[in-house]
Amino acid sequence: MKKALVGIIMGSDSDLPIMKQAADMLEDFDIPYEITIVSAHRTPERMFHYAKEAEERGLEVIIAGAGGAAHLPGMVASITPLPVIGVPVKTSSLSGLDSLLSIVQMPAGVPVATVAINNAKNAGLMAAEILGVKYPEIRQKIKEYKEGLRKMVEEKAQKLEESGAEKYLQSYMKKG
Amino acid sequence: MKKALVGIIMGSDSDLPIMKQAADMLEDFDIPYEITIVSAHRTPERMFHYAKEAEERGLEVIIAGAGGAAHLPGMVASITPLPVIGVPVKTSSLSGLDSLLSIVQMPAGVPVATVAINNAKNAGLMAAEILGVKYPEIRQKIKEYKEGLRKMVEEKAQKLEESGAEKYLQSYMKKG
Amino acid sequence: MKKALVGIIMGSDSDLPIMKQAADMLEDFDIPYEITIVSAHRTPERMFHYAKEAEERGLEVIIAGAGGAAHLPGMVASITPLPVIGVPVKTSSLSGLDSLLSIVQMPAGVPVATVAINNAKNAGLMAAEILGVKYPEIRQKIKEYKEGLRKMVEEKAQKLEESGAEKYLQSYMKKG
Amino acid sequence: MKKALVGIIMGSDSDLPIMKQAADMLEDFDIPYEITIVSAHRTPERMFHYAKEAEERGLEVIIAGAGGAAHLPGMVASITPLPVIGVPVKTSSLSGLDSLLSIVQMPAGVPVATVAINNAKNAGLMAAEILGVKYPEIRQKIKEYKEGLRKMVEEKAQKLEESGAEKYLQSYMKKG
Amino acid sequence: MKKALVGIIMGSDSDLPIMKQAADMLEDFDIPYEITIVSAHRTPERMFHYAKEAEERGLEVIIAGAGGAAHLPGMVASITPLPVIGVPVKTSSLSGLDSLLSIVQMPAGVPVATVAINNAKNAGLMAAEILGVKYPEIRQKIKEYKEGLRKMVEEKAQKLEESGAEKYLQSYMKKG
Amino acid sequence: MKKALVGIIMGSDSDLPIMKQAADMLEDFDIPYEITIVSAHRTPERMFHYAKEAEERGLEVIIAGAGGAAHLPGMVASITPLPVIGVPVKTSSLSGLDSLLSIVQMPAGVPVATVAINNAKNAGLMAAEILGVKYPEIRQKIKEYKEGLRKMVEEKAQKLEESGAEKYLQSYMKKG
Amino acid sequence: MKKALVGIIMGSDSDLPIMKQAADMLEDFDIPYEITIVSAHRTPERMFHYAKEAEERGLEVIIAGAGGAAHLPGMVASITPLPVIGVPVKTSSLSGLDSLLSIVQMPAGVPVATVAINNAKNAGLMAAEILGVKYPEIRQKIKEYKEGLRKMVEEKAQKLEESGAEKYLQSYMKKG
Amino acid sequence: MKKALVGIIMGSDSDLPIMKQAADMLEDFDIPYEITIVSAHRTPERMFHYAKEAEERGLEVIIAGAGGAAHLPGMVASITPLPVIGVPVKTSSLSGLDSLLSIVQMPAGVPVATVAINNAKNAGLMAAEILGVKYPEIRQKIKEYKEGLRKMVEEKAQKLEESGAEKYLQSYMKKG
Repeated sequence: MKKALVGIIMGSDSDLPIMKQAADMLEDFDIPYEITIVSAHRTPERMFHYAKEAEERGLEVIIAGAGGAAHLPGMVASITPLPVIGVPVKTSSLSGLDSLLSIVQMPAGVPVATVAINNAKNAGLMAAEILGVKYPEIRQKIKEYKEGLRKMVEEKAQKLEESGAEKYLQSYMKKG
Repeated sequence: MKKALVGIIMGSDSDLPIMKQAADMLEDFDIPYEITIVSAHRTPERMFHYAKEAEERGLEVIIAGAGGAAHLPGMVASITPLPVIGVPVKTSSLSGLDSLLSIVQMPAGVPVATVAINNAKNAGLMAAEILGVKYPEIRQKIKEYKEGLRKMVEEKAQKLEESGAEKYLQSYMKKG
Repeated sequence: MKKALVGIIMGSDSDLPIMKQAADMLEDFDIPYEITIVSAHRTPERMFHYAKEAEERGLEVIIAGAGGAAHLPGMVASITPLPVIGVPVKTSSLSGLDSLLSIVQMPAGVPVATVAINNAKNAGLMAAEILGVKYPEIRQKIKEYKEGLRKMVEEKAQKLEESGAEKYLQSYMKKG
Repeated sequence: MKKALVGIIMGSDSDLPIMKQAADMLEDFDIPYEITIVSAHRTPERMFHYAKEAEERGLEVIIAGAGGAAHLPGMVASITPLPVIGVPVKTSSLSGLDSLLSIVQMPAGVPVATVAINNAKNAGLMAAEILGVKYPEIRQKIKEYKEGLRKMVEEKAQKLEESGAEKYLQSYMKKG
Repeated sequence: MKKALVGIIMGSDSDLPIMKQAADMLEDFDIPYEITIVSAHRTPERMFHYAKEAEERGLEVIIAGAGGAAHLPGMVASITPLPVIGVPVKTSSLSGLDSLLSIVQMPAGVPVATVAINNAKNAGLMAAEILGVKYPEIRQKIKEYKEGLRKMVEEKAQKLEESGAEKYLQSYMKKG
Repeated sequence: MKKALVGIIMGSDSDLPIMKQAADMLEDFDIPYEITIVSAHRTPERMFHYAKEAEERGLEVIIAGAGGAAHLPGMVASITPLPVIGVPVKTSSLSGLDSLLSIVQMPAGVPVATVAINNAKNAGLMAAEILGVKYPEIRQKIKEYKEGLRKMVEEKAQKLEESGAEKYLQSYMKKG
Repeated sequence: MKKALVGIIMGSDSDLPIMKQAADMLEDFDIPYEITIVSAHRTPERMFHYAKEAEERGLEVIIAGAGGAAHLPGMVASITPLPVIGVPVKTSSLSGLDSLLSIVQMPAGVPVATVAINNAKNAGLMAAEILGVKYPEIRQKIKEYKEGLRKMVEEKAQKLEESGAEKYLQSYMKKG
Repeated sequence: MKKALVGIIMGSDSDLPIMKQAADMLEDFDIPYEITIVSAHRTPERMFHYAKEAEERGLEVIIAGAGGAAHLPGMVASITPLPVIGVPVKTSSLSGLDSLLSIVQMPAGVPVATVAINNAKNAGLMAAEILGVKYPEIRQKIKEYKEGLRKMVEEKAQKLEESGAEKYLQSYMKKG
């Protein structure tokens, strides 16, 4: 399981701090991935070829992030038969509402599996869930991940119940 | 391939005219599915059990549609390790913006693969794309579907180019 | 009156700085409360049990805060017969508009008594007003609280009228 | 239990078709109510007196509906110590977003328990839930109501599962 | 012309840094004014009396500023026959969109002359324009003010044309 | 009092059904007015001259209505020292939100007294309130108008209280 | 001047009733154009070739209309050096706000000259204005067109002034 | 080619830091331009003359930037037959949504070629694309510019692929 199964692409390297969180999540799940810059607007031919060859190259899921008039996820989805997950990147003027609508409001025939604004972490997780349909070991890890989330919240809940809100804010939270 | 691979659920039977389009798409792809009503708010225990047992029952993808404060897709996603596709159903007052935000803005750890408002057709197609990761025959059908879309548009384009806008509007469109 | 009458819950400890303001308000009214973390998405079973047992455990009102696709208030309201007050927590991308719509736009049959974005203080006060229907001593305290608000504003008004806007801004306000 | 426990007021008789749904819900719960027109903007003194005397007259909850720059719920809440439930009525230009924000975004100190746009039915139900804190027989009815919702959804679900989407749409839904 | 012609009121002293700009504008026009705090929600009776007595006390225009569910301008307008100018104060969560809609979307019969979010300066100027209908000397000052605006812009334009954008940014603007 | 005191202008005759309501209100107050079409975008010179000469011609208030990128009220306000009331006309695509923001968000120095979307009736009333500052007989009529509103609401309230919601809806409302 | 100077493309034939208005405008200006369907999402290769070859084929301006997640104008602009005018087509759920943001919010380096929602007429006019930079005869026609707009408005204004609003509405407007 | 071909105007010198980016882009293309302040609201006559004389003075394109109720681009477009490019400047309260709608939603007959919020760079580029219709040397530079964008992205992509996300963030990005 060395060849990349997930391709993470983004329109600009300014999206990298967000999109890297998808990569981090995939690493936690030991899912091989590749990550690069593919701009629908500045490198349309590169985008075209990336999408066209993705399946042959062995990719099984594509995660695409972009901001503003965010066309990358939808354009890639129009070319590849692979499932494409879209990450609307937050923008300085409209806070990512433009990115969200540009990605999610795709016409019939070309869906993009859209996650929350800036939530590349969830894009990584959704990629894992999709691969979990095929790979039982990834499915197993998702179950463990969900179990981990549960435990983390329950531990925090226990601490809060024991120490009270005042003390919890002071002792366990970095900033209030 | 008779056992349902996809579960289509909705919060209310008033969502059925929309959600049936997901079912129709799955039928076009010969993907076995089941369709029923599961309300997060009116039948929380039923929702809980549906999500809990989905994987064991052999479902591989869940499509959930709901409107307004639409909690069904996210709640099901919190319980099952299967990928969940969310369909924001259009609402009479806020046109589905409330449904969209209630479904797509999930917190880190629990993604919902959200499609456009009322676009259950795309939810069916996304389910097919996800299953295509595992089943080569479904992948093949997606390619043929995309090819069909291409041909349909090109035929329409040719007709429009040949007949001109005026005549096309009169002859080929039901209403203008 | 030692057993908790109000349960304050939140989806994440990052909501605690906001939700603690509900607790502070209840303390001002000498209303016993409990406060903990219950995540609809990360601990769905815990949420289910919390809501299921709330009435039996003697809680009379539940205050639930959450942000983004905020399902906690609505899901708890779907399970318990107690009145549930929802606090939409402000989010970094959409400023809490997503939280607000996810909480307030509940379908017929399952209301959530929604307060303003981040206004957990008002959630505490609404809990007190609801308990005031049953407990005359709490009703009395609400009247005194409202009287206090009135006096505070009138004192400020008098100072402003006496000193003028310029001097008031310099002397009585921390930052301008 | 003949004296009105709930006062339903609205800014204009054009709100009556919506607000009557709150009354209908209260009748289903056998909760005595009164219903009238009180306009914050056209009858400010009437509004003032209504709010001032509500508690003495024996009302325990007030439901107030209004549209546009909807000040009635908040103004009544500023005068009475009773819990006030606000119903944002849908408007022709902004679809009730103006009503919603005018009602829910109350400043600290004066909460309004806001329900969904046009959802007066839920306002009636929230009034019942609040009264259920004091009156065990109302609490009991709420439980039965929730149970009824559950059954209704489950029956519909069963029909849909048995008949399939196509036939269900034809046989059980008035319009598709 | 010593008695106050304009009453400037605001819901909270936190609005004072904004609302003082209305006062400053009136001072530039030598229009006598009074400024104080009147909260529709925390001092409803004070608000009622302020609005009721404004005309008798000699006020000719009222400027009212408030934020969030901003009811002060509309409530005062419902009580007094004087023209009321509303200033929507910017809010931390919804940036004043809530304030704007709560103030401007008044029902037929009770108008509020609304200015831009946080633009109390324009409220002062609008008050002057209204008083200019009656007092020729104020009308004259408005003309001079507009002439001053024109000159200021033309001088800046000349500087920019002469020095070029680069130098202008460095020499004439505090921060870029 | 025969010469027009109020000038009602609109960008297009498609705005006339709305803007005529301002005229009707002024007729109810016996305030002489003129009404015509002045398009900022299609007749910029006409607009310029209209605004330039308005004061000399004896107009004391201008009401300007426009939709979409609605520049007429603000442009007229930039030229005349008279108070300008802006009516945002509802648009087919954005429901008048574009009109509202284009009219109300004026920069410091050039206010427009904005009323609710499509509420030309209130623009007429605001013009009357402004003229009431100068003309006691108009002020008197405003008081009577407000008194009339009060009575109308109280009569409706009485009917509703006497007949109940069901019968009121059937007997007194044209459509429900 | 027979070879098409302007290419009008749209994502779907459902956009034709709107986009035909651009063609009609160009016909009024005697500007040769071509019109066809090019879907970024359903015929990405066709879109790619259309944009790639547009300049060589002699096109000088491209008008592209699309709705929802509208990628056609921006994608074409990313490939061709010609100026691209984007028409956001109104959508059933979000009224074209999605189309508008998807088209106008392009990243630095790839502008789209965006016009109002559904305003293909203005797209045709903007194409003419752009061609007017090169072709004096088109510039001349634009001046005449603007003159015609002026006259039309002035004639309507005269009619309205002469007949009054009541009669104008009855005699000159098709529906009120 | 010394006489200015492009006129860059803005409503206030506070817009200069943004609008200078249009000038910088034009300098990169060796396109002569002029830049100055022209306020529709504070210097309406100056605006009128600027627009009236632009064509005669040899300008071929106008770029106009403004914020809030941004009337400058549309008003200039109403007077000149030249193509006008509008830049919506971001505002502190509504983040430029007001500017965008005030500029883009122009009525039929008077288009403004609108670019993204604060994207004056793209306005400069669109001006170049428009001039490229007439001047082959500018068209050539646009092609080179697009080629440069492509190379820049591909170099970044190569670096990211070689170094990985972690190292890229540390080495090649100023802040993460």
